[in-house]
Amino acid sequence: MVNNFRSYLEKKRALIEEWIDNNFPKGSGLGRRVIEASLYSLKAGGKRIRPILCLMGYELFRSDSEKVLPFACGLECIHTYSLIHDDLPCMDDDDFRRGKPSCHKAFDEATAILAGDGLLTLAFEWFTHPKIIKEVSPLALLRAIHLVSKAVGLVGMVGGQMADLLAEGKKGDARTLNWIHTHKTVLFLEASLVTGAILAEAPNEEIKVLSKFGKKLGLLFQIIDDLLDIVGDEKTLGKPVKSDLKKKKITYPALYGVEKTRALAEKVHRDALQALEALSHRDFKLLKELTIYLLNRVN
Amino acid sequence: MVNNFRSYLEKKRALIEEWIDNNFPKGSGLGRRVIEASLYSLKAGGKRIRPILCLMGYELFRSDSEKVLPFACGLECIHTYSLIHDDLPCMDDDDFRRGKPSCHKAFDEATAILAGDGLLTLAFEWFTHPKIIKEVSPLALLRAIHLVSKAVGLVGMVGGQMADLLAEGKKGDARTLNWIHTHKTVLFLEASLVTGAILAEAPNEEIKVLSKFGKKLGLLFQIIDDLLDIVGDEKTLGKPVKSDLKKKKITYPALYGVEKTRALAEKVHRDALQALEALSHRDFKLLKELTIYLLNRVN
Repeated sequence: MVNNFRSYLEKKRALIEEWIDNNFPKGSGLGRRVIEASLYSLKAGGKRIRPILCLMGYELFRSDSEKVLPFACGLECIHTYSLIHDDLPCMDDDDFRRGKPSCHKAFDEATAILAGDGLLTLAFEWFTHPKIIKEVSPLALLRAIHLVSKAVGLVGMVGGQMADLLAEGKKGDARTLNWIHTHKTVLFLEASLVTGAILAEAPNEEIKVLSKFGKKLGLLFQIIDDLLDIVGDEKTLGKPVKSDLKKKKITYPALYGVEKTRALAEKVHRDALQALEALSHRDFKLLKELTIYLLNRVN
Repeated sequence: MVNNFRSYLEKKRALIEEWIDNNFPKGSGLGRRVIEASLYSLKAGGKRIRPILCLMGYELFRSDSEKVLPFACGLECIHTYSLIHDDLPCMDDDDFRRGKPSCHKAFDEATAILAGDGLLTLAFEWFTHPKIIKEVSPLALLRAIHLVSKAVGLVGMVGGQMADLLAEGKKGDARTLNWIHTHKTVLFLEASLVTGAILAEAPNEEIKVLSKFGKKLGLLFQIIDDLLDIVGDEKTLGKPVKSDLKKKKITYPALYGVEKTRALAEKVHRDALQALEALSHRDFKLLKELTIYLLNRVN
């Protein structure tokens, strides 16, 4: 099972990389530097969790998930833009990402801001790519775009990053931590999975189940992320450890300690698997494997 | 006629402001600072040319343009995001915009970057707003979103801003100037008009005419923008004059001088009006008035 799952992930990653390579804008004009910078960050590696979640959400209901690859790859553009902007000196000021210099280090600040802007915009160009428009229901596609833009917008990921910056160095409480993580990370991960199901025109009740599961999965992802900053290996992570600690970020281990955080991760993991049970008539074993993978991940 | 046109502009502006006020996300959570910052810039005034172009493009073919207000207002979000990011210290480093401190001055750099990100994202949330989805053809809407994202993306406005920054302080030529202005300004203005026509399900041949006219109109807009930096009045403009000059930006007056630039503007103005003639069976007098208005504008 585990080996099958690893090879599933590899196969999907290869499809995602291939689609990106074949469809990324060619930089022939005077502005090609920003195309190089966007591609530098987009191709710097990464687990491709969000596009894979979208494909998995789709595959619960339909088998031809290659049809929604443009949408899935757009989600990865949004994720990469958020990393580029978060790494900027006036934000989290991180010099390394995925074992390579961050975009503003490899290029410069202005180019990095523009690369982020360009990737965010490219996401919506890909969401409405002719290749997907002819394959899925136009209304489902519009609904999926609406859901993602809300999840990553002012009352979603962008609001979460704002709150994260404002909370730095302050004594935070559980409510603040939960608000930040929900907005900065969970909503987008949840939306990535749910848009897959929307594009497959899944029944609304099942979309609700996936939404509930997605929230748990997103929370699990973030708790482990917080833990890896403390107990992770710098080389495997591709970024310096204890950076949340140095910046006095509000995190689960900072609030509860490592032991209790680990226990919390295991509880959320169980909750996620339990939420999935409502889909017992579907083949959800890949989502189950993914939940286990996210609990045990080391990068 | 001129009075009628002014009152038309005022009426549309009022509708746009009203739609924005009624639909802008409410900032109740921990991230509300970024909502305040986005709204600060979005409501700082401005001519609302892009949303008005969209409404005009629609009204050539259909009368019920209030149906596409969510789309039109989304275009204004994109425009405002581009101004906020362009004003940043690492970009054009402008402290004033529309007679008020720029976003990063009124708030701070991180907040300004996030406000821009949030407004860009909000555009796509509004493009797919339930209020517009039920009013226009879903396929037309997807086509319009695709067109705009290309126009303002890596090979559009973002690429143009990159090239603009790279050209600063260098001896530019006509080809460079044309590439920058086309990408930074013209494509988005053209797209604003054309998306209106697409949303009205206009025939493709007429969309092509509007696209040609829109390119001329966009070029006229930019030439006058360059001129106003030299001959404009600081108070009316709401930003310091001669700032292009100080930054050694490549502009029409820098390349050709004020007299020749003024003559060029008049030529492009005539070209634009001529392009419109192909739509003689439509009521294009508002677009004609707009072209005259853009030639004679003082801010």
